[in-house]
Amino acid sequence: MRSMDELFHSLLQDVYYAEKQLLKALPKLAKKSTNINLQEAFATHRDETEEHVTRLEKVFDLIGKRPRGKMCDAILGIIAEGEEVIEDVRDGALRDAGILAAAQAAEHYEIARYGTLREWAKLLGQEEAADLFDKTLAEEKHADELLTSIAVGGLNESANERPQAAE
Amino acid sequence: MRSMDELFHSLLQDVYYAEKQLLKALPKLAKKSTNINLQEAFATHRDETEEHVTRLEKVFDLIGKRPRGKMCDAILGIIAEGEEVIEDVRDGALRDAGILAAAQAAEHYEIARYGTLREWAKLLGQEEAADLFDKTLAEEKHADELLTSIAVGGLNESANERPQAAE
Repeated sequence: MRSMDELFHSLLQDVYYAEKQLLKALPKLAKKSTNINLQEAFATHRDETEEHVTRLEKVFDLIGKRPRGKMCDAILGIIAEGEEVIEDVRDGALRDAGILAAAQAAEHYEIARYGTLREWAKLLGQEEAADLFDKTLAEEKHADELLTSIAVGGLNESANERPQAAE
Repeated sequence: MRSMDELFHSLLQDVYYAEKQLLKALPKLAKKSTNINLQEAFATHRDETEEHVTRLEKVFDLIGKRPRGKMCDAILGIIAEGEEVIEDVRDGALRDAGILAAAQAAEHYEIARYGTLREWAKLLGQEEAADLFDKTLAEEKHADELLTSIAVGGLNESANERPQAAE
C-alpha cells in the first residue's frame, strides 16, 4: 500500500468482511440466548448491521471500487470466542452473560474501526462517506450501551443465581 | 463452565493472555513507528500494560487461583492485523496511521473485556478486583483517547501527504 487511499480501501474491505460475518453470527447468538431482552437486542442489531453493509457498499461506490471483503482475523477471533462460550456453557442464564460479553467485544472492534474510517474519510475529502461512518458509529455505540444496560439490569444477576441454585 | 465464578475465571485467563501478548507487541509497534508522539505513547502504554498484568495477577490471587493465560483468538487476530500493516506499508508516515489504527482496535478489545470483568467482579462480591479492573479500564480508555488525539493532531495528515509527495 502506497497511499492513504489504498490504506482506506483496505480497511473498508476489512470492515465489510467483518460486518458480513456478524450478519451471519447475530441470528446464531439470538437463537442461543434465553434472555428476551438480549434476543431482541440481537434481532434489532442484525437489522442495523444489514444497513451498515449497505452503507459500506455506498462508500465503495463513492470511491469507485467494487464492494469486496478482505479476511479480517480480528472479527474471526472475536466470533470464535463467542462460539466457545456457546459450546462450554450449558446453563442458559450463565451462557447469556458470556454471549453478551462476546457481543460487546465485537461492538468495540467496530467502534474502533468506524472511528478510524470516519477520520480517514474526512482526511481524503470524502465527507459523504464520513457522515455514513458517523451514523454507523453512533449505532454501534448505542448497541454496546444497550448490551451494558441489559447486563447490569438483571441478566448478570440471573447468571449468578441460576447455576448455584441448580447445584 | 457451570457458575459465574468459572466464567469469570475463564475471562480472566483470556485477558491475562491478551495483556501478555500486548506486552510483546507494543515494543515492536514502537520500533516500527516513525512519529515521535506515537513512539512515546507505545512506550508509556507498555509500562502501563506491565502494571495491568500485575493487577490481573493480584485478582488471580484474590480468587485463590494461579495466574495462567488461556489462548485468546481475538487479540491474536488484532495483532495479526497490525503485523499485516507493518508488512504491507513501506512508507513510514503512512504505516504510522495503520499501526495507530490497529493499536486502537487492541485498546477497544481491552475496554470491552475490562468493562465485563469489572461488572462480573462486583456481582461476585470481589470489590477489590472490581477496583483494580476499574483502574485499568480508565488507563485503556485514556490510551485510546491519546491515540485519537495523535491521529487527528497531525499524524493522519502526514500520512496523507508524504506518499503523494514522493511520487
